[in-house]
Formats: sequence, structure tokens, C-alpha cells
Amino acid sequence: MSINDVLTTIDNNLDAATDRLMEFLRIPSISTDPTYKADCDKAADWLVADLKSIGVDAKKCPTPGHPMVMGEVGAENTDKPHLLFYGHYDVQPVDPLDLWNSPPFDPALEETPNGTVIRGRGSSDDKGQLMTFVEACRAWAQVHGSFPCRITFFFEGEEESGSPSLIPFLKEHAEALKADVALICDTSMVSRGVPSIASQLRGMLKEEFTLVGPKIDLHSGHYGGPGLNPLREISKLIASFHDDETGAVAVEGFYEGVHEVPADILRQWQNCGFDEKDYLDNAGYTVAHGEKAYSTLEQQWARPTLEINGLWGGYQGAGTKTVIPSEAHCKITCRLVGDMDPAALRAKLRKHVEDRLPTDTKVVWDLDLDGSPAYVIDTTRTEFEAARGALTEEWDREAVFSGMGGSIPVAGYFKSILGMDAMLVGFANDDDAIHSPNEKYDLESFHKGTRSWARILDALSK
Amino acid sequence: MSINDVLTTIDNNLDAATDRLMEFLRIPSISTDPTYKADCDKAADWLVADLKSIGVDAKKCPTPGHPMVMGEVGAENTDKPHLLFYGHYDVQPVDPLDLWNSPPFDPALEETPNGTVIRGRGSSDDKGQLMTFVEACRAWAQVHGSFPCRITFFFEGEEESGSPSLIPFLKEHAEALKADVALICDTSMVSRGVPSIASQLRGMLKEEFTLVGPKIDLHSGHYGGPGLNPLREISKLIASFHDDETGAVAVEGFYEGVHEVPADILRQWQNCGFDEKDYLDNAGYTVAHGEKAYSTLEQQWARPTLEINGLWGGYQGAGTKTVIPSEAHCKITCRLVGDMDPAALRAKLRKHVEDRLPTDTKVVWDLDLDGSPAYVIDTTRTEFEAARGALTEEWDREAVFSGMGGSIPVAGYFKSILGMDAMLVGFANDDDAIHSPNEKYDLESFHKGTRSWARILDALSK
Repeated sequence: MSINDVLTTIDNNLDAATDRLMEFLRIPSISTDPTYKADCDKAADWLVADLKSIGVDAKKCPTPGHPMVMGEVGAENTDKPHLLFYGHYDVQPVDPLDLWNSPPFDPALEETPNGTVIRGRGSSDDKGQLMTFVEACRAWAQVHGSFPCRITFFFEGEEESGSPSLIPFLKEHAEALKADVALICDTSMVSRGVPSIASQLRGMLKEEFTLVGPKIDLHSGHYGGPGLNPLREISKLIASFHDDETGAVAVEGFYEGVHEVPADILRQWQNCGFDEKDYLDNAGYTVAHGEKAYSTLEQQWARPTLEINGLWGGYQGAGTKTVIPSEAHCKITCRLVGDMDPAALRAKLRKHVEDRLPTDTKVVWDLDLDGSPAYVIDTTRTEFEAARGALTEEWDREAVFSGMGGSIPVAGYFKSILGMDAMLVGFANDDDAIHSPNEKYDLESFHKGTRSWARILDALSK
Repeated sequence: MSINDVLTTIDNNLDAATDRLMEFLRIPSISTDPTYKADCDKAADWLVADLKSIGVDAKKCPTPGHPMVMGEVGAENTDKPHLLFYGHYDVQPVDPLDLWNSPPFDPALEETPNGTVIRGRGSSDDKGQLMTFVEACRAWAQVHGSFPCRITFFFEGEEESGSPSLIPFLKEHAEALKADVALICDTSMVSRGVPSIASQLRGMLKEEFTLVGPKIDLHSGHYGGPGLNPLREISKLIASFHDDETGAVAVEGFYEGVHEVPADILRQWQNCGFDEKDYLDNAGYTVAHGEKAYSTLEQQWARPTLEINGLWGGYQGAGTKTVIPSEAHCKITCRLVGDMDPAALRAKLRKHVEDRLPTDTKVVWDLDLDGSPAYVIDTTRTEFEAARGALTEEWDREAVFSGMGGSIPVAGYFKSILGMDAMLVGFANDDDAIHSPNEKYDLESFHKGTRSWARILDALSK
């Protein structure tokens, strides 16, 4: 029997596969908010049951946080490569809820100018992508009654909340998890219809601080004038993070460890099918707003950033409150590239703020936030060429090695803790609105993504 | 019978008066939040019943918003001045609730280093102050079986939410409300134990805007770098409102209509008993943070301000969300002095923001917010000297004509709409934490405030 039988089975079972995904999407497994702890557990149980239904020996593994799901199959194929597949079943929070056009956890198929989409939180990040691999395995097993090689399934429930349990878990289960290569489906295509394998990922540093001013909220009539206002002061601090002339981050030493992109890689990127206009349009931008000295693609893939993800203080309710609040709050994430060291960067960022603290204020840092370095992948391995060929066949368009603006810390941990390279193949599109209201996943991504994995499994097990 | 009988009655009835105030404070009449509409109505009913209990012909008057309370008594005293007493029964919101040491609407007496205080939202602003006058009338009526002069009671329920119904109501009921002079008890003493009559009030301009950037919330991995971040941009706008060198507001034309304080008034202020250190200590400040060229008292009483009262955007929940939000929000109030024109100032403020809007952003202004000019009171009228004498007797300390940092728009409307001067006498202290968690009113303010009004009524009706 040939790969075509598997592909045909995938085509014939698309409706059933979509229904399974919908069921999975209905579980509100928001990992960052303790309110949803039971739902994260439920999502893990759902995965265990689904893996068992295709003959995988799967189990839920407890952690101090949300459980991991592990499963293994095809160990008899000792002459074939051992693959580990990673995905995450947790999803982002849904606020602002009022901007959703349909309930985030009541997924539905929807017709759009770009074709049919699966609408709902997690449809793209990462439940839909995760299921492309599971559905490929299901079809393979259905056609062959077996699996092409030894496959270890590894699903996490804390990816959207900093993966606090991941490193200890990897260390504890190193033997079971160490495979020849890890497959990860949590990335997007460079452009619609352009199959992409990520060759480098940005790292991430998380920070949060509270600027404390007066000892109580004050009346802006009694104290307006002589009173220091933390909202004004935190705004000045945030404004000081960037140089408006160059668009560069102005924190001293921020760019230590950043390398320019080699000319040959830059040339590849220039021809990778990235549609700058489309990328900017998706966000409602007419121009790129980052470092003026770099192209939009470099700004996204190869340059570090400092972003404010949350900012709040004072009165947010209806009407007016004439208050000078005692505190202001700010959430920050930095994207890291090259050899930037998260710990060193954290120190520089804190120094930048502490050097600028006005009289009568203090800063309180959140001490529970982590960081991870950037990761450049060795794409010279034979598996990468095989996968590139399989993707090129499926999409009828040459697959590319792309950069990545996002951070997939697990890929770095696979390398540093298990000595295992990761191959990141994803089918998301830039307009999927992941982490945003109205998240969606193209039905084409789900369908051809599943077919792509079948072809990759075939290529890697030949 | 002499004034002393009235003062003795007040002393003897202090406990009962305090119980009545407690009952009034238990009604959560937050006017700015629609959730509490019924409670505002309940507070109005409570006042009507309490006025009736001392023989005042009182009634609740509906408005498009919260009701007004009106009452009249003593019309037979045609040879005496006609006084109007104004206060407001609505209170500020209570957030942040977690900073309260006791439930804001479960008032209680509490011993402190500065003596006994009445703790609870509205105890100082303005229910406690309002009741000082009502209790003085109660004692007077009890002793004399009548009232010293014609008194019109006028209580509002929208003072903390911009008084939307006030101007039309004043115009509609001009005849009933027009008296010889208005008495208002909603201000504080220059310093603990220094009886004060406000001689000028700052005006207020309210603004709120939303800065709109990308058309949806974005993933800070996909768009961090090229993406414009509204939280960073609104911070730059807020930082641009002031000149950090001088501490002055940097909005072009902001100071048009502002006059320097005359030397003789400045001399009065220098000797008015204002305790700068105490004032700054109450807020946890070691220095004044306003315009460097002016004294702390001038900054508070005689200089205009631009304050940020609320600032928010992006993720505020537990953990991290790697988002570039599509919007950022900001609430602003300006305090006005001299001849500053609210409408002209609004135009300048909006121009300042609109002139600085970055590419790919737009600003949306709240169009429902009002403004009121500053108000300088004619303190040469005989009533002011009479009241000053009465206060000096009660507090055994010369009463002063003080400035005011706050805004009491109604005083300006009494003048502009009814041609009636207002005399503002209040007994609050700067550490009352009005508009803040743990608001309190000194029992001494309540007791001696009541005695003060009895003396003022006596002096004004001689």
C-alpha cells in the first residue's frame, strides 16, 4: 500500500477529524488563569482517550501545575528513526471577550473570502495544529494497521503560561522523551500556501513591575499639583524604553549578543514568499514601526524587542474619578535573538528602570517570571531535507527554511536538556489571530497539514 | 434663650447624631456607577425623612439622573436673611476594595492617634459634612421650637459624577432656590483645627480618550518589532503633557487665563496655618512634585493641573499574555484657575494629542464629559465677616479665608445661574482620604462642625 491510500483516507475522514477537533476546542483549557485548572485537566484526559483510540499507549502525567500527556507506539520499528511529537493543549485567555463575534469556546466552521475556517480559541494555537499530526497517525494506522516508526507523543498544558513544570519534567523523563528528532507543530507559514520549516526562534524574557507612589490613592483636587502621579511617571518610564529616532530599544546593553543575519540567509528570506504588504495589512498597518535600519522580516525574525503587554492604574470604570492612584502596573516581554542572555537582560532592564525612579517612588518587580534564550536550529540534518521534499510535494510549492518571530522555548530545552534537535513545521497563517479575539485556523491548513505529516512520516521512515 | 442652650443640646445629642450619620453612611449611594441607582434613590428618601423629622417641608425631586432633595422652613422670618444650604448625598466608588481595612459601607467609630474618627465611604465627602448643618438645625429647632431664619435645603445626588442634571434643575427651580447667600459644607480646613472659609475654587475639565492602533490584538511574537504598540504610544503622549524641567504642563496655551496670586493674598496664605510637611506626609511625599516656580500651597490652590486619573490597556490578569493590544485608554482631569475657559482648554488638549498621533493610529474622544471654570468668591460681604467671627469663637483660633485645590462647580453655577454668592465652610482634614480607601471624618469635625453651624446661624440671623 502506498502513501496515496493514507492521503485518500485523510481526505475521506476530514469531516470526522473536524468534529473531533471541535470537541477538543470546546474545552476552555486556559492555563494562565487558575480558574480553568479543571478544564486543563479535562483537555489532557481528552487527549489520552483520543490517543488510545488509535492504539497509542497514552497516559496523563501529573506535575505541580497542569498535567503532561505522554504516549508511545511503534517501538517494534527498531530500524526506523524514533520521533517525538510535541504540541500543547492549553490556550490563551480570551479577553477582551466583547471583541469576539462568536463564543470563543463554541467553535464553528465559517466561510470567509480566504475559504472555510475553523473559528474558536485554540483552533490555530495549538489544538488544531496538534491534531494535524494525530489525524495523520490515525489515518496511517487505519490503512496499515501499524505505525511507520517509533513515535513518542508529548503534549504540554502550560505552554501559554511559561511552562513552569517543563524543565523538571524533561529532566525526570529524559530517557522516555529522548528521540532522534522532535517534531513540533506550533508555527505558521511564511505566507499563505508557502510550506515552512522554522530555522530559528526568538527567545523571551518576561517582566512585570508595580510603580508605587503616594501611600494611598489621593484626591486630585487636594493633591493635584504638588502630588506625584504614578500613571504619569510609569508613562515616562515606558517612553524611555525606546529611541524614537531609530526605533531601537534604548536600554543600555540591550543589543549585546545580537548578530547581524548572514548575507546568504538574508537572500533566502528575500525569496521565501513573505508578503510584507499582506503581513502589515492583516494588522491594519501601512508601514513597519520597528527599527528603521532593518527590513520588516528582519524586525520580525532576527531583531530583539521590548513590548508592553499590559499597562494599568487608577480608575477604569464608568464616568470620572478624580483620583491620583497610589500605584501603576506594567507587564513586559522581550523577544531575544542570537546569544542574548535572559538573566543579563533582566538585570539591564531593571537597572534602566531603577536608574530613572523619581523621588518618592519605589518599584516592585514580579519575581516569578522566567526567560529563555533564542534558538538556531541545525537544518543540515537529513530529516530536514526529507521533510522539505514531502512538504514541497504536498503544497506544490518549494518549502522554505524560515525565521520565526515567536518563541517556542521547548525546542531550546529539547536541545539543551535532551540533546535532541527539533523540526518545527506548522500550517498557521498570520491572519489566524492567535492570542486575539476571533482566533481561527484555515480548514485547508488542517486538511493539508494532516496530509503533510503523513508525507513527512512516510519520508522519515523510508 | 441663648446660643449656649443650642450648643449644649448639640453636645448632649452627639451620640444620637452619630447614629443617624452611621445609618446614612450604610447606603452605598455611588452615583457614577449605574449599579447603585436604587441606593442613590434610597439615600434621597432617607434625607427627606430626616428633614421632615425636624419639621422641614422636604421632598424628593426627580431628574433624568439621580433625584434632588429640596426642603424649606422658617419662611415666616421675613426680616432675616434667606439661606440656602447645599450638600450632596452621593459618594465616590470604593475601588480598590482590597485596600480597605473595613467594609466601606459598614461605618464604625475608631480610635486613632488623632482622636476618634468615623470610618466609611462618604463619612467626610459629603454625608458627614452635610449632616453637621442638619444636626445644627435639629438642635436649634429643639431649643427654640422654630428656625432662626428662612432656610432652603438643597441636596444633590450627582456631585461625584459631574452633576449632569444640576444646571437644568437650577434653571427650572430658580425661584425656589434663589436665596441671599448659599452655604456649602463640602470643603476641608487648611490645617487641623484651623477653621477655614474657601475664597476661591479651582474649576475642572474632564477628558477621556482611546488610542486605537492595530485592528486586532496581535501576537507579540508575530508582530513584535514591526508592530506599533498603543501602550507604548499612549505612554509617549502622556509623557508629553508635562515639561519635566519646570514641572509645568506643556500643552500649548494651557496657561492662558491664569493669573499670579496678588501679594496681599499670598501673605495671608503664608500665615494661614497650612502645615506643608504634614500635608506632604499624609500622602507619603518628601517634596512637592508640581511646578518648581511655585510654593506647595500655590501649586494646590492657585495653579492649574493636568492629571491622569486612569490608564489601561492590554492584559491585566494573572500570568503573562504575549499580546500587542489594539487599544489603550486614558482618563484625564484638568484643574482650572483664574479665567481659564474649559471649552478652549479642551480644544488645546485635543490638539496636543492629535498633533502627536503616530502613523496607523487614531484617537477616539469621550464626547460626554463636561467642564467648569474656576470661581473666586466675593468675601467682602457682611455674611463672611459674621461667619468668620462665629468660627473664630468656636475653634478658639482665627478663621482664615483659604484657597481650595478642589472643584465645587455648584458654587459657580449658583453665581452664574442664580446670581447667588456661596460661602464654603467645611470641617474635613487632609488626611480624611476622601475618594480613597479607608475614608474617615474626625468625630471632632462632626461635633464642632455642628456647633460651628449653630453659631453661624445665630450670627447671620442677628
